[in-house]
Amino acid sequence: MLLKKNIPLRYIFGKIQYELLVILLYTTLIAVLHETNRVLPISIPLAIPALLGTVISLLLGFRSNQAYDRWWEARHIWGSIVNESRTLARQILTFTDTGEQGDDVHLFRERMIRRQIAWCYSLGQNLRGTPATTGLDKYLGKRELEAVSQYSNVPAAMLEQHGRDLKRALENGWVNRYQQVELDRTITRLCDAMGKCERIKNTVFPSTYSLYIHFSLLLFIALLPFGVIEYFGFLEIPLVMAVSASFLLIEKMAIHLQDPFENKPTDTPMTTIARNIEKDLRQMLRDQEFLEYEKPARAYYVL
Amino acid sequence: MLLKKNIPLRYIFGKIQYELLVILLYTTLIAVLHETNRVLPISIPLAIPALLGTVISLLLGFRSNQAYDRWWEARHIWGSIVNESRTLARQILTFTDTGEQGDDVHLFRERMIRRQIAWCYSLGQNLRGTPATTGLDKYLGKRELEAVSQYSNVPAAMLEQHGRDLKRALENGWVNRYQQVELDRTITRLCDAMGKCERIKNTVFPSTYSLYIHFSLLLFIALLPFGVIEYFGFLEIPLVMAVSASFLLIEKMAIHLQDPFENKPTDTPMTTIARNIEKDLRQMLRDQEFLEYEKPARAYYVL
Amino acid sequence: MLLKKNIPLRYIFGKIQYELLVILLYTTLIAVLHETNRVLPISIPLAIPALLGTVISLLLGFRSNQAYDRWWEARHIWGSIVNESRTLARQILTFTDTGEQGDDVHLFRERMIRRQIAWCYSLGQNLRGTPATTGLDKYLGKRELEAVSQYSNVPAAMLEQHGRDLKRALENGWVNRYQQVELDRTITRLCDAMGKCERIKNTVFPSTYSLYIHFSLLLFIALLPFGVIEYFGFLEIPLVMAVSASFLLIEKMAIHLQDPFENKPTDTPMTTIARNIEKDLRQMLRDQEFLEYEKPARAYYVL
Amino acid sequence: MLLKKNIPLRYIFGKIQYELLVILLYTTLIAVLHETNRVLPISIPLAIPALLGTVISLLLGFRSNQAYDRWWEARHIWGSIVNESRTLARQILTFTDTGEQGDDVHLFRERMIRRQIAWCYSLGQNLRGTPATTGLDKYLGKRELEAVSQYSNVPAAMLEQHGRDLKRALENGWVNRYQQVELDRTITRLCDAMGKCERIKNTVFPSTYSLYIHFSLLLFIALLPFGVIEYFGFLEIPLVMAVSASFLLIEKMAIHLQDPFENKPTDTPMTTIARNIEKDLRQMLRDQEFLEYEKPARAYYVL
Amino acid sequence: MLLKKNIPLRYIFGKIQYELLVILLYTTLIAVLHETNRVLPISIPLAIPALLGTVISLLLGFRSNQAYDRWWEARHIWGSIVNESRTLARQILTFTDTGEQGDDVHLFRERMIRRQIAWCYSLGQNLRGTPATTGLDKYLGKRELEAVSQYSNVPAAMLEQHGRDLKRALENGWVNRYQQVELDRTITRLCDAMGKCERIKNTVFPSTYSLYIHFSLLLFIALLPFGVIEYFGFLEIPLVMAVSASFLLIEKMAIHLQDPFENKPTDTPMTTIARNIEKDLRQMLRDQEFLEYEKPARAYYVL
Repeated sequence: MLLKKNIPLRYIFGKIQYELLVILLYTTLIAVLHETNRVLPISIPLAIPALLGTVISLLLGFRSNQAYDRWWEARHIWGSIVNESRTLARQILTFTDTGEQGDDVHLFRERMIRRQIAWCYSLGQNLRGTPATTGLDKYLGKRELEAVSQYSNVPAAMLEQHGRDLKRALENGWVNRYQQVELDRTITRLCDAMGKCERIKNTVFPSTYSLYIHFSLLLFIALLPFGVIEYFGFLEIPLVMAVSASFLLIEKMAIHLQDPFENKPTDTPMTTIARNIEKDLRQMLRDQEFLEYEKPARAYYVL
Repeated sequence: MLLKKNIPLRYIFGKIQYELLVILLYTTLIAVLHETNRVLPISIPLAIPALLGTVISLLLGFRSNQAYDRWWEARHIWGSIVNESRTLARQILTFTDTGEQGDDVHLFRERMIRRQIAWCYSLGQNLRGTPATTGLDKYLGKRELEAVSQYSNVPAAMLEQHGRDLKRALENGWVNRYQQVELDRTITRLCDAMGKCERIKNTVFPSTYSLYIHFSLLLFIALLPFGVIEYFGFLEIPLVMAVSASFLLIEKMAIHLQDPFENKPTDTPMTTIARNIEKDLRQMLRDQEFLEYEKPARAYYVL
Repeated sequence: MLLKKNIPLRYIFGKIQYELLVILLYTTLIAVLHETNRVLPISIPLAIPALLGTVISLLLGFRSNQAYDRWWEARHIWGSIVNESRTLARQILTFTDTGEQGDDVHLFRERMIRRQIAWCYSLGQNLRGTPATTGLDKYLGKRELEAVSQYSNVPAAMLEQHGRDLKRALENGWVNRYQQVELDRTITRLCDAMGKCERIKNTVFPSTYSLYIHFSLLLFIALLPFGVIEYFGFLEIPLVMAVSASFLLIEKMAIHLQDPFENKPTDTPMTTIARNIEKDLRQMLRDQEFLEYEKPARAYYVL
Repeated sequence: MLLKKNIPLRYIFGKIQYELLVILLYTTLIAVLHETNRVLPISIPLAIPALLGTVISLLLGFRSNQAYDRWWEARHIWGSIVNESRTLARQILTFTDTGEQGDDVHLFRERMIRRQIAWCYSLGQNLRGTPATTGLDKYLGKRELEAVSQYSNVPAAMLEQHGRDLKRALENGWVNRYQQVELDRTITRLCDAMGKCERIKNTVFPSTYSLYIHFSLLLFIALLPFGVIEYFGFLEIPLVMAVSASFLLIEKMAIHLQDPFENKPTDTPMTTIARNIEKDLRQMLRDQEFLEYEKPARAYYVL
Repeated sequence: MLLKKNIPLRYIFGKIQYELLVILLYTTLIAVLHETNRVLPISIPLAIPALLGTVISLLLGFRSNQAYDRWWEARHIWGSIVNESRTLARQILTFTDTGEQGDDVHLFRERMIRRQIAWCYSLGQNLRGTPATTGLDKYLGKRELEAVSQYSNVPAAMLEQHGRDLKRALENGWVNRYQQVELDRTITRLCDAMGKCERIKNTVFPSTYSLYIHFSLLLFIALLPFGVIEYFGFLEIPLVMAVSASFLLIEKMAIHLQDPFENKPTDTPMTTIARNIEKDLRQMLRDQEFLEYEKPARAYYVL
């Protein structure tokens, strides 16, 4: 989750602690060798690791860009899920007509909006690989929960239920034909958002690029001490460690950002977003009660 | 606010004054050491800070790009809010029919357009973290203002009110079924714009990237004097300060641009934009009066 | 205007003539100093300006990209204005029905299409800061011209007039309800295009970035002669001037491209585009006369 | 296919084995020459290959970006095919009315959804250059399969069949006029997705760019040993081979990514995606049976 | 045309043969001078051309990107023309009703689809600057061809004809009101595609950028021999020629790609694409005959 809370530094450096330990040993060894052994010159011109450094910078830049784009697209998609959920709720509340069949319409509204809340939680859980139906009993009726549990893709099943409820609403005259089609478009956009999340989840960053960058980085770190030993002596150890840590961290950050649905501290805060959607939608639903449906409504549902 | 007015230079350099002071002391110390102490050679090859400089340039380029994109997207969104507000007003004025229920329709038009003006101010205040309902009493009726104040998200509540007014307009025959759906689409686009602003506001730039770049930059500044001391002597002090100031300023600019809704001199000029929208929409509303509704209208409202 | 005509070289170099003059004096001074004064070594390693050169290249690349994007987006928007104007004219001509009220419909068609032509000119003049109503009397009736002149935003007023004419067309049965909504969408897209132009016009490129890049560039030019004087002697003068001119020109070009609506030789050719739109729309209107309305039509209007 | 499974390393290095062999011989020859022949100095300054290295890095970065964009766009398109297929199925199931002509409607639904499944497989096979109708007999009736086989573009023919079935549905009153148009829009988006795949398939990456980058890379590899021989001696062999392998691999990866529909291990996993679509759509269809059409339905089709 | 066929190498190198000849003479002259004249040292440090090389690489990268984007956008647009042509044909065939006025409807279908084929050829010829009506007599009736020939923009005139035919279809009841609007949207998208092509055609790449890059490149090539002469002697000639050829070729490629509608071997294969559209649309039309209109149809038209 990348909300305004800080990510603990220990978490970050914890990810590269083994690499740093190996580099510490490696650089110390070279420094000791350099000081004790005066027979073999082990220094090389700095231009050689520098050449590698430029190439790696460019490749890490390319990789950071792609990883950032994936992460930012994930955030885009969940932003649009917020928007479409609010739009769906607004349309449900302001398209339907509470005429003669007032109670049925209110049940229909409630069912749609609560299912939409459930959909957001369910999609997040599905993307993170945890069971998609956990906790949905608060929002869905028992029979419906059983029905959607049969599906391999639970959120897709809920969108289908949305569509079927809409059909019933059209048949009962609660929405007119234009409104049905317009509501169906909102569902289509939710379907798109879901599919885009699955695409990001299921498409790995080309692993050969990752491998290549990692190998080049190791080669660069291995050559770097020889390039600076002559000027720094033992000071080479912290210098190489600082530079290596920078490069390794930037690589690790790219790896984390590129998978925005993996239950890591840097992923998309889907549960938080879903909770905010729930708050907004509940408020819209309750307000609706207050203004137009105050007395009998509370008998039907408890939020 | 990034309008055509200049940003005071003092404001800019004020942001890095402490860093510059530290660098001044640091570089002076090194220059003095270099002049007085002739035992230890403290010069290193320029290629070492140069290597770091290339990497940092690439990373600052990456960061500037992302920050600029966030800032530009924020400006895009507010540009589309201008467009959609005008579109909503135009549709309200040219879709509705002032037949038999002329006065009610005029009240409806006025209520919608004034709420739209209020929405723009409210969204800006909400994004900046100031109370969302300040000053809205000029545009909203007392009861409506109380109603929307109950909501945690005031602008979202107003869009819901838009939707509910539209429903009433359909029921009264002021708009036809196609026009209701079309107006609802405009509201949906306003809802999207609002959600996009919230996304930018709530999604921080990955803080580990920022940290890494900052640490690398400090390392670069710390090494730079040693690389140039041999050629410049005391002239090293202004040189290092100028180069450091450049890098620090570009980093600071990126930090400011990346948060376009934070009440800083460089953020999106939301109040100015909202004021322009108000001017345009008031003009459209008044003109409407002049042309078709001149006499009785002024009895109902004062702008 | 960036049409196929060449931009005079004198215009380009004229923009940097003062900078070049100063650099000429500066480099000559250094060359003379180097030849006459043999006491102080004034040469520095080329790596120092080279380091700055890399950083500046990256920043100029970033800036060129953003400036080009603004310029290209402006061209995009005016391209879409061409498309939407043609679409509006086509829809006006092929949606409306010349049944019983043939003459009124023809007047309506003509009024809409001529107003659309006027809108294109007016928007261009508005963006360039010249009076928005100059020359519109050829396209608009006297009363309408007076009405729109009252507005602070003349093109926006014309779109409102479009909407109001459409409403009348619906009331008179010249278009059906779907066609009204569809035509309104075209107007919405024109409204978007107008708002996008205003966004680009009113949003300045972050001025601190510009300042920083300019200062770094001056620092680079100031250091460059010292880096090459040793190898080139007096030949240093043309070399430094050529390199400086390159960097200064690229900076100037970015500055020009980034403001695509400022009445400069490199801006968007809005008048030319509007003239092409006029030609196309007039042809569509006249052709319509030939085919279906040949005899009585010419009595009503002269193009 | 770039799913979560690893790409075998042997596959990757197998692609550049001949190049590596030639480089091994070449570098060994130079090392031997350097050790034995002390007459001619064969060393050159590292700055010369370094200059080429920078240029090549930039060009490979450009190329990697374009290749990645093609690959990612292909994945985008297939992601949207997943979404539109689900949307089509949902609309078919929830728009149509099973009133008096229940059985016919069910047959219509089934025919549409099975044709959609067939379309996904067929498009994938078409793009890979294998026969487009292989295995479609499971989803299409015999007569229809024969009809579409006549077409040079089989998936396009199926979309036409979709449209014709929709027309029949409108004529029979199974969908209303808005729903027909809405369903036709979904088909239009499928048509767009198909056309985009064909565009990527049929547009080669400009081959002169590829050639240029390849020649520059060979020049760079040819010069590299002379630049490092002085410092490394025989160690130059593994060093040059490692660096060359990195550059060659990155070039190869770009070549593979840029053609995402070519039956290679890194291409778009179209068959897998189509199988997932089939699973989802079958489930939607079956579920439909369970809920509303349990008894007679199973007599008509076996999935 | 960038189809799968190879571009002849002679064509590529032919474009830079004069430049290469001049460089050959220039480098030979310098090499001879270096060998014979031992008085003046004409060697300069490689860092000077290297600095220019980095800057030029970045600028060529920027330029390649923009040129590639223009070329790729052109390809995108023609891809969407393929899609919209198929969509138009599908909608024409599946929206219209062959009830009582069967023959007239068939003539209408045929006229629309053949005009769409003609439009594709005509747009391509228009963009390439060849007469827009060449060869259209195969697809358009004589009177219509004369009518559209009057227009300065022939493809725009055809879209207008599309719109007018649609209006007649609505008046005759061949399409309903929703279908007319939906078909008009497809025409609007075709109109957009046409306008986008014209935008790319009429907007030149900022010529000052091109000039600057070209001058910098010449300066770089002029300095390069002096930087490498010391290490290579006569071998400097092929080396400088190879490096120069690389840079010149990449510049030439960018110049070609940036103008994708100029009748060059690398431009958009518009004729080939139009021919494929014709094949698809004819097949759709013929197939229609086979299935529903077999006997009388062939009397009316021969494809």
